[in-house]
Amino acid sequence: MTDDPAALIATMGARARAAAAVLARATTDAKRAGLRAATETIREDAAAILAANARDVAAGEAAGLSGAMLDRLRLDEGRLAAIADAVEAVAGLDDPVGAEIDRRERPNGLVLARVRVPIGVIGIVFESRPNVTVDAAALCVMSGNAAILRGGSEARDSNAALHAAFVRGLARAGLPGEAVQLVPTADRAVVGAMLAAAGVIDLVIPRGGKGLVARVQAEARVPVLAHLDGINHVYVDGAADPAMAEAVVVDAKMRRTGVCGAMETLLVDRAFPGLPALVGRLVATGCAVRGDPVALALAPGVMTAADDADWDTEYLDAICSVAVVAGVEQAIDHIARHGSHHTDAIVTEDTVVAERFLNEVDSAIVLWNASTQFADGGEFGLGAEIGIATGRLHARGPVALEGLTTYKWVGRGAGQVRG
Amino acid sequence: MTDDPAALIATMGARARAAAAVLARATTDAKRAGLRAATETIREDAAAILAANARDVAAGEAAGLSGAMLDRLRLDEGRLAAIADAVEAVAGLDDPVGAEIDRRERPNGLVLARVRVPIGVIGIVFESRPNVTVDAAALCVMSGNAAILRGGSEARDSNAALHAAFVRGLARAGLPGEAVQLVPTADRAVVGAMLAAAGVIDLVIPRGGKGLVARVQAEARVPVLAHLDGINHVYVDGAADPAMAEAVVVDAKMRRTGVCGAMETLLVDRAFPGLPALVGRLVATGCAVRGDPVALALAPGVMTAADDADWDTEYLDAICSVAVVAGVEQAIDHIARHGSHHTDAIVTEDTVVAERFLNEVDSAIVLWNASTQFADGGEFGLGAEIGIATGRLHARGPVALEGLTTYKWVGRGAGQVRG
Repeated sequence: MTDDPAALIATMGARARAAAAVLARATTDAKRAGLRAATETIREDAAAILAANARDVAAGEAAGLSGAMLDRLRLDEGRLAAIADAVEAVAGLDDPVGAEIDRRERPNGLVLARVRVPIGVIGIVFESRPNVTVDAAALCVMSGNAAILRGGSEARDSNAALHAAFVRGLARAGLPGEAVQLVPTADRAVVGAMLAAAGVIDLVIPRGGKGLVARVQAEARVPVLAHLDGINHVYVDGAADPAMAEAVVVDAKMRRTGVCGAMETLLVDRAFPGLPALVGRLVATGCAVRGDPVALALAPGVMTAADDADWDTEYLDAICSVAVVAGVEQAIDHIARHGSHHTDAIVTEDTVVAERFLNEVDSAIVLWNASTQFADGGEFGLGAEIGIATGRLHARGPVALEGLTTYKWVGRGAGQVRG
Repeated sequence: MTDDPAALIATMGARARAAAAVLARATTDAKRAGLRAATETIREDAAAILAANARDVAAGEAAGLSGAMLDRLRLDEGRLAAIADAVEAVAGLDDPVGAEIDRRERPNGLVLARVRVPIGVIGIVFESRPNVTVDAAALCVMSGNAAILRGGSEARDSNAALHAAFVRGLARAGLPGEAVQLVPTADRAVVGAMLAAAGVIDLVIPRGGKGLVARVQAEARVPVLAHLDGINHVYVDGAADPAMAEAVVVDAKMRRTGVCGAMETLLVDRAFPGLPALVGRLVATGCAVRGDPVALALAPGVMTAADDADWDTEYLDAICSVAVVAGVEQAIDHIARHGSHHTDAIVTEDTVVAERFLNEVDSAIVLWNASTQFADGGEFGLGAEIGIATGRLHARGPVALEGLTTYKWVGRGAGQVRG
């Protein structure tokens, strides 16, 4: 236990604030040099990092962690190389800091610009994947922010080894090591202290399962960027191309079932003739399908009956619910009632119907004739992402370097007074 | 008392959400027509509004409200005409909704655009000024948002009469009256219910004194845009033009002392020779000046001694603290320790020093050779403002129509799958 979690976070936060001020002024080249040095130091420390990870895995096995958790925890040479490569890739991204968003000259001659600046101190609360330690650190440094990282206790030694390598790299390139701090205790009260640290931590980003995200959203006194659910829909319109509908639906559901961008509910226009074939393709790929009464009648024998809870369920598994709707308006209504404002798609050849769906579905990402599995910063061309946000303020959808910045107004005058 | 404040807000919130969906789809012309009709209905109802206001003023006098509060509460024909004119002015602003922020085509042909959309349901909690009812309603409608307004009990009848006129105007133009709802009770527990209404209200904006803003910031479970303090600084550098320094400093402090953009602390470079003249000008305009020991020695007899609390005080009055610093770095450090991230200014002819100040001072608004009293959406060319934000996320400085929007990602494909 930590004697005083709030004092610990206040101390770490004050160091982070000082480091953030240095990072905010660092040139793009200086930040890139820091990240490239961190890439080197992670590679140099490979043996020590893998040994630390082996201790975590052994302890996890002894503690009876599930196979899935052990897999998320485990590093090998390939995974560690990918972690180092990811830091190098972030160093190659465009630096958002310092960019002018707009500039206006007022009639009195005052020139006002909005300029992107870092947010400041970002808290990352994450679970077993040790790669988050490094990914989050790299994105924060490149965007000029200081990071306070709180990883899961099961990855304690792995996170410590990766963190030590990363900050040695920063220091080698002349950047402050305290720009990236790792909470040195597994005491869960420290998470509460981070969530309460208004004015000390400017933004908290949770990375992990629904239990973690829900706790952060419920408790936080500081702003949070996160998504809780990805209850995503594909609506197959009556004017959809059947072959495209099958390809998009199968990809959206089955490419990877455990990702937040996976489709969970398929909505089919009653005017679309291909429902039996569509459901048949899903079943053939190993998906269990739960249908509403109309769907069950249209494709008998391949589905079980959906109940009310299915429409609000994120399966994250090879399971899909199917509802038949009377056109795009009913589809939009269904998504408004049951969706989670993450990613929803329409398949149709009808431009008017498509634009209505894109306009009226109130989700962070809306797609026309494309798979929901594109919900990813890399696929969006943003480089790495720190997460996907389904809240409505600041940033929505994939959050990458630009989402880790804010702006300030800079005015240049010649002695103007308001008078 | 309200039996169940949470249920009241849930009911109002559901109506607001439905109205917000209609407003989000409304064309610019439809929103402008609604606001112009509301301008007319306010003018039509002038006698009833002034009579309602007279009842509030009489009740306030009987209850012993201060003269300042009664002045904020009181309407007359001129003030009411200005309220109606302000609605008409908002109708003339550019509509931010639907604007594409960026557009990118991915190598796979997927075209991704970010498009501005309304935030949704905005709660406004305000005190005695009845004009806020109408200003906030107009800005929310023009930006496609529904508003839930909770005004002060002392302006109950005024707010009800203004609200009735406003929504009759919306309805006359075919917009849903429930786009702007007024909380029908003075029960303070309703404010708590609004602040707790995550998922029902998307953003709360408090408009009023420090007590109100502090309560909102402390309690809110929904995002808040606000500023608590405006502890603003003007730093007069050694390379400042003395005449410009006097003009900027006197305007920043004395043009209006009760506004959040007023200067509270004057920082003077010890290399600037004009401190006695500068302080003399402030004193001559009626300002009480409190100096640190060096300032007291440089201009004896015109100041009292500042104590530690002065550097952290927002006087909102004809009072100013003065500290002598050893150059721009000490000025930046002073502002980092004592400022409120609102508006800070430098006066200098030295471009390098100025750019350092603009870059390193971490405030929503930083100004070079201009008065801090320009901290205002109208002066920034944004049209009306709904408030000034000193938080770090979403919007900083004056918040106008664009700050009342967020964005969504819209992707248009040709059957792309992630594969």
